[in-house]
Amino acid sequence: MKRLQLAALLLAAVLLPASSSLAQTVEQIEPPSWWAGMKEPRLQLMLQGSQIGSLRPRLHTPHAGVRMLPPERVASPDYLFLNLHIAATARPGTLQIELLKPDGRVAQRLSYALQARAPGSAQRHGFGPQDAIYLLVPDRFAKAGESVSNAEMLEAEDRSQPGGRHGGNLAGLRQHLDYIAGLGFTQIWPTPLVENNSASYSYHGYAATDFYRIDPRFGRNEDYRDLVAEARNKGLGVIQDIVLNHIGAGHRWLRQLPEPDWLNQWPSYTETHHARLSLLDPHAAASDRERFVSGWFTRGMPDLNQRNPRVARYLTQMSIWWVEYAGLSGLRTDTYSYSDRGFLADWSRRLMQEYPRLNLVGEEWSPHPAVVAYWQRGKRKHDGYVSHMPSMMDFPLHGALLAGLKEDDGHDSGLTKLYEALAHDFLYPDPQRLVLFEGNHDTPRLFSALGQDLALWKMALLYLSTAPRIPQFFYGDELLLTSPAQRDDGRVRADFPGGWAGDAANGFTGQGLSAEQQEAQALVRRLFNWRKSAPALHGGRSLHYAPMHQVYTLFRQGGGQTVMLMLNKAKEPRRVDMTRFREALGSHSEGHDVLSGQTRRWSESLELPARSALLLELR
Amino acid sequence: MKRLQLAALLLAAVLLPASSSLAQTVEQIEPPSWWAGMKEPRLQLMLQGSQIGSLRPRLHTPHAGVRMLPPERVASPDYLFLNLHIAATARPGTLQIELLKPDGRVAQRLSYALQARAPGSAQRHGFGPQDAIYLLVPDRFAKAGESVSNAEMLEAEDRSQPGGRHGGNLAGLRQHLDYIAGLGFTQIWPTPLVENNSASYSYHGYAATDFYRIDPRFGRNEDYRDLVAEARNKGLGVIQDIVLNHIGAGHRWLRQLPEPDWLNQWPSYTETHHARLSLLDPHAAASDRERFVSGWFTRGMPDLNQRNPRVARYLTQMSIWWVEYAGLSGLRTDTYSYSDRGFLADWSRRLMQEYPRLNLVGEEWSPHPAVVAYWQRGKRKHDGYVSHMPSMMDFPLHGALLAGLKEDDGHDSGLTKLYEALAHDFLYPDPQRLVLFEGNHDTPRLFSALGQDLALWKMALLYLSTAPRIPQFFYGDELLLTSPAQRDDGRVRADFPGGWAGDAANGFTGQGLSAEQQEAQALVRRLFNWRKSAPALHGGRSLHYAPMHQVYTLFRQGGGQTVMLMLNKAKEPRRVDMTRFREALGSHSEGHDVLSGQTRRWSESLELPARSALLLELR
Repeated sequence: MKRLQLAALLLAAVLLPASSSLAQTVEQIEPPSWWAGMKEPRLQLMLQGSQIGSLRPRLHTPHAGVRMLPPERVASPDYLFLNLHIAATARPGTLQIELLKPDGRVAQRLSYALQARAPGSAQRHGFGPQDAIYLLVPDRFAKAGESVSNAEMLEAEDRSQPGGRHGGNLAGLRQHLDYIAGLGFTQIWPTPLVENNSASYSYHGYAATDFYRIDPRFGRNEDYRDLVAEARNKGLGVIQDIVLNHIGAGHRWLRQLPEPDWLNQWPSYTETHHARLSLLDPHAAASDRERFVSGWFTRGMPDLNQRNPRVARYLTQMSIWWVEYAGLSGLRTDTYSYSDRGFLADWSRRLMQEYPRLNLVGEEWSPHPAVVAYWQRGKRKHDGYVSHMPSMMDFPLHGALLAGLKEDDGHDSGLTKLYEALAHDFLYPDPQRLVLFEGNHDTPRLFSALGQDLALWKMALLYLSTAPRIPQFFYGDELLLTSPAQRDDGRVRADFPGGWAGDAANGFTGQGLSAEQQEAQALVRRLFNWRKSAPALHGGRSLHYAPMHQVYTLFRQGGGQTVMLMLNKAKEPRRVDMTRFREALGSHSEGHDVLSGQTRRWSESLELPARSALLLELR
Repeated sequence: MKRLQLAALLLAAVLLPASSSLAQTVEQIEPPSWWAGMKEPRLQLMLQGSQIGSLRPRLHTPHAGVRMLPPERVASPDYLFLNLHIAATARPGTLQIELLKPDGRVAQRLSYALQARAPGSAQRHGFGPQDAIYLLVPDRFAKAGESVSNAEMLEAEDRSQPGGRHGGNLAGLRQHLDYIAGLGFTQIWPTPLVENNSASYSYHGYAATDFYRIDPRFGRNEDYRDLVAEARNKGLGVIQDIVLNHIGAGHRWLRQLPEPDWLNQWPSYTETHHARLSLLDPHAAASDRERFVSGWFTRGMPDLNQRNPRVARYLTQMSIWWVEYAGLSGLRTDTYSYSDRGFLADWSRRLMQEYPRLNLVGEEWSPHPAVVAYWQRGKRKHDGYVSHMPSMMDFPLHGALLAGLKEDDGHDSGLTKLYEALAHDFLYPDPQRLVLFEGNHDTPRLFSALGQDLALWKMALLYLSTAPRIPQFFYGDELLLTSPAQRDDGRVRADFPGGWAGDAANGFTGQGLSAEQQEAQALVRRLFNWRKSAPALHGGRSLHYAPMHQVYTLFRQGGGQTVMLMLNKAKEPRRVDMTRFREALGSHSEGHDVLSGQTRRWSESLELPARSALLLELR
C-alpha cells in the first residue's frame, strides 16, 4: 500500500531499484522535484526507506552546475539527507543519483527532476492592497463528481456531522471560480488542502500527514495546479495555507522519527499555553517562552522542532515548492509565532529571497497591535529581532471592528475602539499590507457576531472594503450564514448552500435565497467589484476623524480619487457638519454614492439616516 | 482689593512706586523671585499693571553677572516682559530694577530677590521605585483650625455639597503627616493647592486663578513650604500637581489677555474631543490634532496656548519656581498630552536640565501602552519626537489590574489581561519608573470597582506594592471607602473619616472603624512599611508566569532578595506546581509570608486557599 501511495504522490522523482533487495529501498523523496535557477543553490533531499541511512549517494551522470555534497545521516537508519549544490548556471534536466551500499554496490538509482521555472516565476506579484481575498473551507464549499473512495483514508464522508468530512473538493471549487470572481474577489485562500489522514476532524486540513500531497479526497496535486492556473485566468490568485508549527499525529514520521528531536519532546505531554506575549515580554520566564513555542498545539498535532536544521530546511523547501509548483500568489502561515523565532526569520527571509514581490501573511491571534507589529518586515524592535514577513493578519483591527459596531459608543468603547485601533498604525512599518478580515474559519459568523443586525453588517462590509488594509472575506458571509456566537468550528464552517446537489437554497444561482440574503450578496458583489478599480483603496493615503455623536468618517485618497466612508451608529438620523472635513474634501461638494449609484450633494452639512453607512466616491 | 491680594502674594518682590501716578504701576511680577545658580541663565519676568507696557526697564544698580536684555512688549498695554540674563557667577542678592517712562523719568523701582538655592537643590532625588505615593485631595483630607474667612474668595465652605468646598487645609494635613508616614508611604501627592477662585467646584484645584499662590483657604505659600519641610523630616517627599494645559475662567488674565493668542481661540466655543491618539496616528486629520490640543477642556477651563513663547516660558518658570521654592521631590502633570507637544518637550527638557534626578510624572489617560510609552524619556518614536518625561501614570496597567481581578479568566480576559499588560513593558524605555495606581481622584473607589470584594481588594493591593512600578495609593482606600461605580467626582473625593472635628469614625485613630476597615488599614500599613526595606521592589528584575488555572505568579529579584506574589482567583483552593518556577526560585523551598509573618515551606507544590493572595519573601 505504501508503494501505491508513493506512486500517486511522487510527481517527478522516479525510483529505480537497482537490486532486488527490499531492505534498502528509498520509498519517499522530498521535495519530489526541484527547479533550476533558484537563488539559493543548496537543496536538501529527505530520503526515506528501510535501512537507507548507510547508503552513499553520488551523481551517476555529471550534470553541469550540480554537485553532490556530503550527505547527512541521522539517528534513524531509515532516513538519509542528500545535499545538492545547484549553481545558477545549472540547466533543467534529470539528475541521475546513485545510492551505493557500503560495499560499493549500487543499491538504487534515482531520477530526480530539475525542472524549468515558469517565466516570471521569481518576480511574480503577491497579493496586495489592490486585492480582496475570499477565504473558503474546501470541504465545505462545493462538491463535484462522486466521492473519492480511497481505502487508505481513515475518515469517510459524513455530511450529518458538523465536525465530519462533507465531501467538498477541488472539482467543486473549480466549478464556482466564476462565482467568486463575479463577487469582485481577486484572491482565494482555501484552508489547507494537503493530506490530513486522521480518523476524525480531518476536514480542516491543519494536521498534515503528508506535506507534499493534496488530500486525495480533494483531488490530485495536478488538479490543484490546474485549479490555480484556471483561477489565474479568471483573475483570481491563490494563497496557500501552510502550517509550519505542527503536523497531524497520523504523519508517517510518527511511526519512526528521523531524529529524536524531530518533534519537540517533553517528559510528559505538554500543551502550549498560548502565552504568545512571552516572546516579547522582558519579564517572561524562559520556561514560559519554551512552553509557548515547543508545547504541542493539541495531542493530535505534534509540534515540529524547527531548531533542528533539517526540519527547518524541510519546511522552507516545502513552502517554496508549493509556490513554484502550483504558481501561488502568496502563503498564509498558520499559528505563526508558535514556531521557533529564529526559524521564522530565516523561513521568511528565504521565501522573500526567492520571490521578492511575493506576499506572506502570518496568523498571530492577538488583540494587541504591538504584538502583531512585532512580526512585520521593517519593524524596529526592542530586542533586535529581524523578521521578513510582509504581512500579518490584523486580529486587533478585526476585534476593534466588531467591538466598534457592537458596543455602545463611549470614551473607550464602540466607535472609539475602531478609531483608536486604526490610529495604532504608527506601530506598523507597513499597515496597508496587513490583512483585515470580517471573519474566518475560527471566528463566529459576522452576521451572528453582530446580533443578526443587517445595518451593522453593512457597516462592517463597507469598512472592510475601504480600510487601509488587504480585505479578506469568509465564504458564505455574503449569504448571511449564521453560527453560534461562541466558537463552534463545525458550524462556522458550514456547507455553502448550493455546493451540494439537492441543496434547498443555492448561493451560486440565487435560487431559494431570502430577500435579505439577496440584498447582502448584491452588496458584496457591488462593493468588491467597485473596489477593483478604486485606486484610492489600492495604496492611497488614509485620513480619518475621531468619532463624534456616533458618526465615524474615513477618507482614502490616491490615483486622483477620494473615497469617503461615513458610519452613523446613532439610532437617529445625524446631520453631519461637512466643514469639519475640509482637509479631506477640498472643494468637493458632491459625490457618487457607490451603493445606490446616485449623486449626493451637500453644502455645509449632510444628513445620514439612522444606523446607516454612506460610501461616496468624489470626482 | 487687588493691592491687598498682591501684598499677600508677592513673597520677595517689593514694589516701590516711584511716583504717585497710579496709571503706570506694576501690580504683579511673576515669578515673584528667582535664584542665583540656575543652569538656564535667561529669566523672563511678567509684569502686569495699568499702562506699564511702554515703560523701559533697566538695572538701577549693577549686579555682577546680571544683565537686563531688551524687554518684550505685547498687544496689551498692561503687560511688560522683562528679560534678564543671570550668569552662573551671579551672587544671590536683591536686584534693583527701574522702570522708566518714555520721557526718561522713573515710573517705579522694583526690588527683585535673587535668592540662594538650598544646598543640594539641583541634585535632589525625585521620587522613584523605592517610594510609595499617597494621593490626597486637600479639601477632603483634614481640617484644622477655623475656616478662613476671605471675602475675595467666591466660594464658601459647604460640607453638605459633594461638589462644594469642605474645608480641608494644609494645617489639617500637617497634623496627619505621621499617619501617612506610619502607613508606610514615602511621598505625598496633594491635588493642586494653588488658588482656584471660582464660584463653584473650586475645591479640586485644577482651574488655577493664580499660579503662584496657594489658595488662602488651604493656607499661605509659607505654610505650604513649611509643610513640605516638615514632611521631609518625616520621610515624606511632596509631589506637586501642576496644570500646564489650562487655567480657571476666573484667572485675572481673562479680564485682559496679554496677547490675543495667550489662550487658544476659536470662532465659537470648541471643546477638546479627547482624541489623544490623533497625535500619534499617521492617518489623523490635522484639524483633529488641533482640536485635541487647542480645544478647551471645559468652558470653565480656558486653554493656554503654549506655542506663544511667553506662555511657554511662564509655565516652565512657574514649574521650576515651585520645585525650588517649596523643595519638591517631583511634579505630577495634569492632562499632559493636551498641551502643545513642542512645548512639552521643552518643558520637560528644562525641568530635567535644572534637576537631573528629579521625577516628573505625566497624566496620559489612555488604556493603550503604546500611547503612554510615547511620552516617556528614551522612547524611540516613529515620528522622531523627543520627550524628557521620566515617568508617566500607568493607566493601561491600572485598567488591566481592575479587569484582571473583576473579569472571568479566559484567553483574552481576567488574569490574562493583567499578565499581557505587564508583558507590554517591551514598549517602555523605563517601565519601572511608571506610576501604577489602584485609584485616583477621577476613578471609582477601588473597593467599589471590585464589587466590595475584600479578597479581590487584597489582591489589588499586593499587586500594587510588588509590581515593577512606583505604587500610588488613593487616600481613604485604606478604609475601604466606597463610591458609585460610575464616575462621581464629589463622592469619590470623600472626606477622610476623622479629618473633621466631630466625625463619627476616625481613620487616624482607628476609632469607630469596622473590623473590615481595620483589617484593610492594617494590611496597607504592613505592606507598605515592609516595602520600604524590600530591595527587590526598588529596582529588582521582574519575572512572571502566564496565568494557569486562575493563578498568576510574579517574582521580583534584587539586592539579595526574592519576592514572590501569587494570586489565586479560583473559587477553589489550588495546588500550585512549584517546579514550574525553578528559574525564579532556584533552590528555595521556603519563604517568609509577609502578611502573616509565618514561614511557608513546600517541596513540589504549594496549596493556595480559594480566592487568596500569597506574598513571600525568600531568603
